[in-house]
Amino acid sequence: MLDALFRPRSVAVVGASTDPSKLGSLPIKFMLGAGFAGDIYPVNPRADTIQGLKAFSSVKSIGKRIDAAIIAVPKELSLAALADCAEAGAAAAIMFTSGFAEVDAAGASAQRDIAALAKRSKMRVLGPNCLGVVNFAEGMVASFHPAFALTEKRAGVIGLASQSGAFGGLSFSLARERGLSFSYCVTTGNEADIDIAECVSFLAQDPSTEVILLYLEGCRNGPALIDALDAARRNKKRVVAIKVGRTNAGAAAAASHTATLAGSDAVFDALFRQYGVYRAETIEEFLDIGLAAALGKAPRNEKLGLVTVSGGVGVLMADAATDLGLDVTALPEATQARVREILPYAGPRNPIDVTGQVVADPKLFERGLEIALAEGGFGSLVAFTGALPRNPEHAPMLKAVYTSLRERHRDVSLISAGLSTPQFRDELAALAIPSFEDPSRAVRAAAALRFFAHRAAEPAGAEKRDLPALPSGPIGEAEALRALGKAGIPAIECHLAIDAKSAIEAARKIGFPVVMKIASPDILHKSDIGGVLLGVASEAQVEKGFEELLACARRAHPEARIQGCLIAPKIEGGTEIVLGANLDPVFGPVVMVGLGGIFVELLRDVSLRLAPVGLEEAHAMLRELKGFKLLEGARGRPSSDKEAIARAIVDLSSFALAHAHEIVSCDINPFLVLSKGAVALDAVIVRKSLPEKEEA
Amino acid sequence: MLDALFRPRSVAVVGASTDPSKLGSLPIKFMLGAGFAGDIYPVNPRADTIQGLKAFSSVKSIGKRIDAAIIAVPKELSLAALADCAEAGAAAAIMFTSGFAEVDAAGASAQRDIAALAKRSKMRVLGPNCLGVVNFAEGMVASFHPAFALTEKRAGVIGLASQSGAFGGLSFSLARERGLSFSYCVTTGNEADIDIAECVSFLAQDPSTEVILLYLEGCRNGPALIDALDAARRNKKRVVAIKVGRTNAGAAAAASHTATLAGSDAVFDALFRQYGVYRAETIEEFLDIGLAAALGKAPRNEKLGLVTVSGGVGVLMADAATDLGLDVTALPEATQARVREILPYAGPRNPIDVTGQVVADPKLFERGLEIALAEGGFGSLVAFTGALPRNPEHAPMLKAVYTSLRERHRDVSLISAGLSTPQFRDELAALAIPSFEDPSRAVRAAAALRFFAHRAAEPAGAEKRDLPALPSGPIGEAEALRALGKAGIPAIECHLAIDAKSAIEAARKIGFPVVMKIASPDILHKSDIGGVLLGVASEAQVEKGFEELLACARRAHPEARIQGCLIAPKIEGGTEIVLGANLDPVFGPVVMVGLGGIFVELLRDVSLRLAPVGLEEAHAMLRELKGFKLLEGARGRPSSDKEAIARAIVDLSSFALAHAHEIVSCDINPFLVLSKGAVALDAVIVRKSLPEKEEA
Repeated sequence: MLDALFRPRSVAVVGASTDPSKLGSLPIKFMLGAGFAGDIYPVNPRADTIQGLKAFSSVKSIGKRIDAAIIAVPKELSLAALADCAEAGAAAAIMFTSGFAEVDAAGASAQRDIAALAKRSKMRVLGPNCLGVVNFAEGMVASFHPAFALTEKRAGVIGLASQSGAFGGLSFSLARERGLSFSYCVTTGNEADIDIAECVSFLAQDPSTEVILLYLEGCRNGPALIDALDAARRNKKRVVAIKVGRTNAGAAAAASHTATLAGSDAVFDALFRQYGVYRAETIEEFLDIGLAAALGKAPRNEKLGLVTVSGGVGVLMADAATDLGLDVTALPEATQARVREILPYAGPRNPIDVTGQVVADPKLFERGLEIALAEGGFGSLVAFTGALPRNPEHAPMLKAVYTSLRERHRDVSLISAGLSTPQFRDELAALAIPSFEDPSRAVRAAAALRFFAHRAAEPAGAEKRDLPALPSGPIGEAEALRALGKAGIPAIECHLAIDAKSAIEAARKIGFPVVMKIASPDILHKSDIGGVLLGVASEAQVEKGFEELLACARRAHPEARIQGCLIAPKIEGGTEIVLGANLDPVFGPVVMVGLGGIFVELLRDVSLRLAPVGLEEAHAMLRELKGFKLLEGARGRPSSDKEAIARAIVDLSSFALAHAHEIVSCDINPFLVLSKGAVALDAVIVRKSLPEKEEA
Repeated sequence: MLDALFRPRSVAVVGASTDPSKLGSLPIKFMLGAGFAGDIYPVNPRADTIQGLKAFSSVKSIGKRIDAAIIAVPKELSLAALADCAEAGAAAAIMFTSGFAEVDAAGASAQRDIAALAKRSKMRVLGPNCLGVVNFAEGMVASFHPAFALTEKRAGVIGLASQSGAFGGLSFSLARERGLSFSYCVTTGNEADIDIAECVSFLAQDPSTEVILLYLEGCRNGPALIDALDAARRNKKRVVAIKVGRTNAGAAAAASHTATLAGSDAVFDALFRQYGVYRAETIEEFLDIGLAAALGKAPRNEKLGLVTVSGGVGVLMADAATDLGLDVTALPEATQARVREILPYAGPRNPIDVTGQVVADPKLFERGLEIALAEGGFGSLVAFTGALPRNPEHAPMLKAVYTSLRERHRDVSLISAGLSTPQFRDELAALAIPSFEDPSRAVRAAAALRFFAHRAAEPAGAEKRDLPALPSGPIGEAEALRALGKAGIPAIECHLAIDAKSAIEAARKIGFPVVMKIASPDILHKSDIGGVLLGVASEAQVEKGFEELLACARRAHPEARIQGCLIAPKIEGGTEIVLGANLDPVFGPVVMVGLGGIFVELLRDVSLRLAPVGLEEAHAMLRELKGFKLLEGARGRPSSDKEAIARAIVDLSSFALAHAHEIVSCDINPFLVLSKGAVALDAVIVRKSLPEKEEA
């Protein structure tokens, strides 16, 4: 779809200037420098030639097929220029021009005109207010950012897609300093037409791109982003994302910076977990993990070997690895004995501390590494070499060690840590060994590679299901439980009694004790008004309870429609879970699970996923909870039926998806989990048609 | 005390070699290179001169006063060399020689001989197996690490003390690359005599040292380290520590790497909190915060201003700042309006986004910064300047901006972020502006400076108190509660009844309902064996209960000495707290507080401090708890009397300190906190004399 944008054979530059330092001149300069083989058409009515190329007075006057047109004219002229491109049949336009929705209402209105023109003409538009797009393999630089002043076609496997131009340029500069190469860079700016999701989708399909670096402030089209990330996952691309606006202050800053509908950060986080996207929190981490993703191998297990020339740094790395969930397992005893034979001073356990002795005898380092790799069963290994690579004698020797180890251990994820030089770093990169000066960052990279390997193996979510329609009008508790029951979620049997007599009948049928609740579609927080009676033990108590509940309800909500009382069995024991589904304005239904009580209310210990959620993913949600151990039977409790919770999550996600057009939220609270089985005791479904959104 | 070690006027080098690349030659080479003005005496029986200096056959034969002697001979010769130094009256010796306790039992034995010699001769010994000590102001390099191949006397304000030589050398190298200068570096190695605490103490008293960088794997002398850190705090030194072995894997690695008694990591963490030590987790953070501590100003409040040339980076910094507890408060509305006037494109709120426009008009940056500083009331300000400092045109202009701002806003903690050059970085350093390339790291540095400012203002702990002696023999519950009561901790009134009759009398006196518990010094987990009856409501129930409890106890613990039953009032409501004091083998009594139930048991949500604990510190402990909101009255509870808890923490710390010679632990569980007041309902005190340590 976006081929004309990313792989144009011909580029018109509207606003090209005879002054080579001007915005419109830089892309031409950069493309000539990088050796772009396609056609470049400068457009400037007041020039004959620009940088040695024939200039044209308009795009239409070029008279050739135009794949992409750059718009680098002031705002006042930009819409006319865009229309000129469209009339000339350009397939794509790239608008550098700023002063639109990011500035004021008039700008936002002009931006809507751009969107309308794009839609009408079918010419795709990138921007406005963007830094454009670069295709490194072809030297096609449709950008004016100085970072892209290329002098050669050096293409790599990283595709960078950024909503922010400045961030994109900065990340590219920093990455290049670290020896990384890119397939494409694209910055989407105000997204009048092409949005970030489409760019991710392009990179996810692009065969030359193996790693996608993604900078997000928000998202216009949630489903498209989901599809793009799903495609990236299916195509085995490693995706590293930085999404700003995590905190309240950050979100406020993002809102004032961008016109994008941000969406809830917690939902982005769920999206990333679900589609195997590594979320970075700093630029440094973004590039570290991008580097590891571009160079490193996928570890086959969680076991990490550590080899170090400094005992202290070894301990530091063991701490970092443990924090990140890697297993710094000890070498087998027999192997430790052999390490001790070869390296009498060494710490043989893991970390394998070959000590500063390697400065005198660098062969020791190879021996330590070789034993660890051959006998440790490590999926990953991080080696800390101190300052050795900076020593002109030691560096070639180390290179030879790594080369020979790599040949014999092709499947191990090897990472190097320590002071280095650009040359040494690049030599290791050629051996698929990412290197980092800081040992903790090296360990984090090892964990990230394991994350990618692990997530790539996980199955996708459940499929959508067709479910019976909801009853019309507001949905009471009994109806809500019944609807959920039809979706496969075990729900308690609830009898609606319209008078005391039928309440007694229902209770008799159920067996004492029973639970009684007021039944009204207008009263959501029943227990707050005394509208719930637990453990009603006799017919007399049911009769009295009926009157009591009605009185309570009338007192608290005189206007409420009261249908009677609900009678349900009282279930003892179990652990209270909270399940919920909410409609996110950007991404659609989001499913939530948490433990009841302080876990949800005080610690905000919940786990989220976008619907549909598969069974494996539902179990992963449970494992993320801080209170997970409670489900496993901590503190002398019986263990809870986790499979029953996971199945309920899957079914709730199907339910929320099937009814996404009509409901805003569905909360099951409590969902009581027993040693075997589980049951929804109360549920609130809020329709879209309700004037106010209220949650139980 | 350690003057001879850190500031020697004369240095003998035992094992100096005519080969200038040998271990014993390097200190001489380094000292000559750095211009050490004191006397250097090479000691080598087979040489006349070494590096142009007259050589001596032994230390005794020098015949002059020797402040420090370096021992750089093989292990076999090292003890004799040490004896030679001692006989010659050397005040201190520095042993590079390795092969002692870090290798095997024979080495450990030889190391004990070193310790004994040091004690006998009063000659202080650094090492063995250490990289020595460097005094930068005087060019005194008693080390062979290549990082210390100095060519000048460049002294700074940072003192580095490291137990690991390799770590010390690495940190120094990395810090110097970042433009930092040091007062002293010392590495303590095996610590046969001088330990890390003594070195910290020296640096804490040294007027030239303003910042202490501390690397720890463990600690031999806890009280000395406490005193040293307390001295550093009183003398307004900023201390940054990295303590490895946080995790189980890390601790296992540390144990195999070092012979140091590690101590519990949680207790080190408490020590750091208590004495205002910033704990870093990576080498990068260690040096980042060291740099900030050496250069930066103390912010006067939590408010952080952010000025940025990239909106995206602004949001990223706002997120990072919020995570770290800084307040990214918006500029006043009127100020925002003025920002908009001057910078129409700017985001005026905070972050102040001056946008990429500054590339065209760099004056905009100064205007944005000036308004923020003059009107924002910010204690700290971080400015992100993108790649501007790398531009030869922009860098001098930026420098002028910072210079003029610094003059007008002397008290603001200014930090710069963005791509930079060593020259620009050093120019900013001279203006007390730390700079970082990564914006998130710049924000972390701002938070660290606030940490130092905040902690420096806190009062010290409570004083030790004299308390009545504990009863002799095993301490039962009633005695434990009584002893705590005497220490000022509110404890429930408990009556010991030796038969049913006296139990009824006690219950009548207290008033029904009462709580009954089995009374036995041999039964610690009473409720586990059914040894507790809650809500005993009548005389008949007391009588029956007495027999029941005795029967339970005899069944579960036939051998236990049973004193009878305890009768106590039943108290309703309140929140259960757990208080405890344990004797740490390294640091002495450590006090713990946590909320009862899942908080302590499942989430391990506890806060620790070393005794004595002051009232402010006790309140800080409570604020650290994840469940703190529960004490403030979250979830509709009445708020708890936090002052009562804090006072109990203070008193328990005094109690634990006064009885540190005789008790191993004291646990109060539960300590029931009410809206007003609190009371210990149960307590277990375990004596040192008990054969096994058991905790309630």
